[in-house]
Amino acid sequence: MSDRKYAIGVDYGTESGRAVLVDVATGEEVATAVHPYGDGVIDTHLPGSSEPLPPDFALQNPQDYIEVLRETIPAVLRESGVDSEDVIGIGTDFTACTMLPVDEAGTPLCMKPEWRDNPYAWVKIWKHHAAQPEANRLNEIARQRGETWLDLYGGKISSEWLFPKIWETLNKAPKVYEAADRYLEGADWIVLQLTGEEKRNSCTAGYKAIWNKRKGYPNSDFFAALDPRLRNVVDEKLSRDVYPLGQRAGSLTQEMAGLTGLRPGIAVPIGNVDAHVSVPAATVVEPGRLVAIMGTSICHMVLGEEERVVEGMCGVVEDGIIPGFFGFEAGQSCVGDHFAWFVDNCVPAAYYEEADARGMNVHELLEQKAAQQNPGEHGLVALDWWNGNRSILVDVDLTGLLIGATLATKPEDIYRALIEATAYGTRVIVEAFDSNGVAVNEIVACGGLPGRNKLLMQIYADVTGREIKVAGTTQAGAFGSAMFAAVAAGKAGGGYDTILEAAKHMARLQDVTYKPNPARKAVYDHLFAEYLTLHDHFGRGANDVMKRLKALRQQVVAGS
Amino acid sequence: MSDRKYAIGVDYGTESGRAVLVDVATGEEVATAVHPYGDGVIDTHLPGSSEPLPPDFALQNPQDYIEVLRETIPAVLRESGVDSEDVIGIGTDFTACTMLPVDEAGTPLCMKPEWRDNPYAWVKIWKHHAAQPEANRLNEIARQRGETWLDLYGGKISSEWLFPKIWETLNKAPKVYEAADRYLEGADWIVLQLTGEEKRNSCTAGYKAIWNKRKGYPNSDFFAALDPRLRNVVDEKLSRDVYPLGQRAGSLTQEMAGLTGLRPGIAVPIGNVDAHVSVPAATVVEPGRLVAIMGTSICHMVLGEEERVVEGMCGVVEDGIIPGFFGFEAGQSCVGDHFAWFVDNCVPAAYYEEADARGMNVHELLEQKAAQQNPGEHGLVALDWWNGNRSILVDVDLTGLLIGATLATKPEDIYRALIEATAYGTRVIVEAFDSNGVAVNEIVACGGLPGRNKLLMQIYADVTGREIKVAGTTQAGAFGSAMFAAVAAGKAGGGYDTILEAAKHMARLQDVTYKPNPARKAVYDHLFAEYLTLHDHFGRGANDVMKRLKALRQQVVAGS
Repeated sequence: MSDRKYAIGVDYGTESGRAVLVDVATGEEVATAVHPYGDGVIDTHLPGSSEPLPPDFALQNPQDYIEVLRETIPAVLRESGVDSEDVIGIGTDFTACTMLPVDEAGTPLCMKPEWRDNPYAWVKIWKHHAAQPEANRLNEIARQRGETWLDLYGGKISSEWLFPKIWETLNKAPKVYEAADRYLEGADWIVLQLTGEEKRNSCTAGYKAIWNKRKGYPNSDFFAALDPRLRNVVDEKLSRDVYPLGQRAGSLTQEMAGLTGLRPGIAVPIGNVDAHVSVPAATVVEPGRLVAIMGTSICHMVLGEEERVVEGMCGVVEDGIIPGFFGFEAGQSCVGDHFAWFVDNCVPAAYYEEADARGMNVHELLEQKAAQQNPGEHGLVALDWWNGNRSILVDVDLTGLLIGATLATKPEDIYRALIEATAYGTRVIVEAFDSNGVAVNEIVACGGLPGRNKLLMQIYADVTGREIKVAGTTQAGAFGSAMFAAVAAGKAGGGYDTILEAAKHMARLQDVTYKPNPARKAVYDHLFAEYLTLHDHFGRGANDVMKRLKALRQQVVAGS
Repeated sequence: MSDRKYAIGVDYGTESGRAVLVDVATGEEVATAVHPYGDGVIDTHLPGSSEPLPPDFALQNPQDYIEVLRETIPAVLRESGVDSEDVIGIGTDFTACTMLPVDEAGTPLCMKPEWRDNPYAWVKIWKHHAAQPEANRLNEIARQRGETWLDLYGGKISSEWLFPKIWETLNKAPKVYEAADRYLEGADWIVLQLTGEEKRNSCTAGYKAIWNKRKGYPNSDFFAALDPRLRNVVDEKLSRDVYPLGQRAGSLTQEMAGLTGLRPGIAVPIGNVDAHVSVPAATVVEPGRLVAIMGTSICHMVLGEEERVVEGMCGVVEDGIIPGFFGFEAGQSCVGDHFAWFVDNCVPAAYYEEADARGMNVHELLEQKAAQQNPGEHGLVALDWWNGNRSILVDVDLTGLLIGATLATKPEDIYRALIEATAYGTRVIVEAFDSNGVAVNEIVACGGLPGRNKLLMQIYADVTGREIKVAGTTQAGAFGSAMFAAVAAGKAGGGYDTILEAAKHMARLQDVTYKPNPARKAVYDHLFAEYLTLHDHFGRGANDVMKRLKALRQQVVAGS
């Protein structure tokens, strides 16, 4: 035992779980461990089966979540040499909506032999997209009924969220639905495992399950309008007990202490979501500063004092990010993925050879070439919809557009145009917030991209006209979970009484900052106007060619 | 000497000159020789200079044209073993408008030491695009003045044509303009070299210099409205003596006989243009059958009995292709170039490796992969404007567009979409002719593309709904020039009295033919409708984003 106290955060991602052990007083990240899920993302066959899964399935095995604890916690203790007596809490965050049916004891149905072969008994993770028909129908009915909560979710409930996924199971596998004692978010299930306490968190309930702190869930008439069997879905399959972020969910059980090597009884906070838990990790615990979690996609998180309706945001939830504030979330579906697609499909052999010869990767080579240009020099504008548009149009059937190519267009031109397109997409979101009373005065970036592409960061600053700072931690999810663990322990337990206090002492920014350059901003203002015109023309119904092409493609593929 | 008679055709292309020696009786192509221009296309620096050329410059060295004769004529004689006594004529065709300033003796100014360093003294070839401001102003003034000839050129005089290019020199290098005794087309300059006779041909005069068989050139008031110094440009720098295709220009001079190894005094026909001379080479000497010369770009040539106004055609010229008919020309600026750009800039290393491993080139690999798809399967539509739009919009400031891309889009998808886009572009032209009374019942293809890409040919048939036949000769320009050489020699000289006779005996089609498939045509009708909507939206002023991006690009490049 020493004077120093530590907290552990565990971030459950799409492919792996990651633990970080943090010094509570200083925020120093002392040790990290990552454990890839044994079964990964299950999207072709269930483990041990050769039966193909239906299209758009994306499942996980909850046993993998336990294995992450078994592997990574001892690893960070070992690597750091920290005495487990000095660890005051363990916090977790999860992808969402990542949901599973459990029995009365909280055991996932897929762990029970009688349900193991049924895909609907497994964890449906966030990117399981097979509930689109249910989502479409749900939105139609909600609009017809004039449900007022719809506007708080940008006018559309996503197929990724809880009720479409539950309804899909009811439609496709009613026996699984019947057998489920209840449905849990992965975020809450792992807390149940750690503490023995089922404490549903306000973040997933609010953003993914249409729960509102003041009004609760949609009423039973709405659910009955979806399907009479769903009338009492909340009471039968969920719970109305929802707990705000920042609270202590319970204490680490003896069993889990044995599994992890931690001390039984240490604090475990209410579960949380990866993007949301990153906000205080990026130092943001007040309105006016937007956190951009930049990776394969971007999540945009910002706090406000009041509930506001902003077109196309993913949701606004009271206490959804930081207690005491309304948490606003928006997103872009295709950012890092965009550049990965480009590098895999559009970069000629000569560039690979040049990159090899110069000892860099192709992204770095393209960045270097693209960085030599001035805004407007390549003559291109793109719409960044290669994976649809999440905010503000909330339309997965939109597709990509590139305009302005000539025979002189080079790969680095297109690469830069795609970066700019994603920056314009962020500006649309920033301006939607700002013009609806949710101030965005600066941006704090976290996630994988900021450390990898300085050109991209500068372009985002120039395009949005906002200074962009970068979070000190490169693993904001796990780091934020460690912060919440310190809060769950409380000052008396060696931690902090509030997340604001924790942020003040533990979170920090990097020295690097990207300031908008006025001359480049002025050119980007012109280009952004072009982007907006195209955005509205193709995104708001003037020419639905993207949807018709996509429909034709589906028809041709189905017919051939 | 033998009983068989031969004619030689020399085709002056963009990168090289090509000679073919043809049996006059049978049309057999006995020997071919190609000579690349030593200085190629001069677009960065003048030979021997490090001074960068202005943007959009494309020049040539006329000495290279002479070298083609010196190299290729002896080569075809040698290769064929034909006695030069049996060669009855030599014909030539040229790119156009490819123009040069000469002194009184016909010597190009750029060959004179005092002008050698001045880019404006060199040959401006067809794709020299620096005269766009002059073309824009010329069109504006012609419209204001209600010049009736404008409609015969699709409502726009191209920056590629003679008067914008002359005016550009007057504006940028007035001393070169003053020093020029006159301006000649390359087509007429080479005939002057061969024969000592300056005989301007009706084809370039009609299509490139606004000359009309019945009305002559635009009047001097029009030229004065452009610039008072241009009032008498026709009389001062050109000539009103214009000679119809099919005539004999003169006889081969002693000097040129020495250079080439041919017999002095043999027939040399009036100069001609590569695309136009290809029409009889493709067997077409009557209305209803459109000749598509398919290479880096496409020229569409069709004959009519009457003068008709068709939107955006390059021109209608009486006797401009075949004496006795109105020759209609339209074009697409970017076809083979498009695929070359794509392969150079957008095809990933893995495809090169796969092509290598399978012993094919990348075009063949892409063709094979793309051929496995059905129409509509890739979900893409492109506007084929990577090099502007020649017909029917006549707008070099339009640029490329690709719509419908997703993270699942593969290189072969884009490749196929670009092929289809060029086919839609051809359909726009075919329908513009057909709906304005210039029948297009079938298409005869010639040029380099038909032999290289069967998928492309079938897509063109499916998209246009026209059967496509393929010319027997793969070097239609040089072959057509040999046919005209036989006509210049006349029946008495061992050739033919008319081009119709020459076509009947010398030209033929291949056995291969591409018939439209009704099911694929039906899908393409839908896709063509999408193309047309985008074509009109971006091409007719609803959203001039392409022009604004291009203008911004020019501004940024000029400023940096």
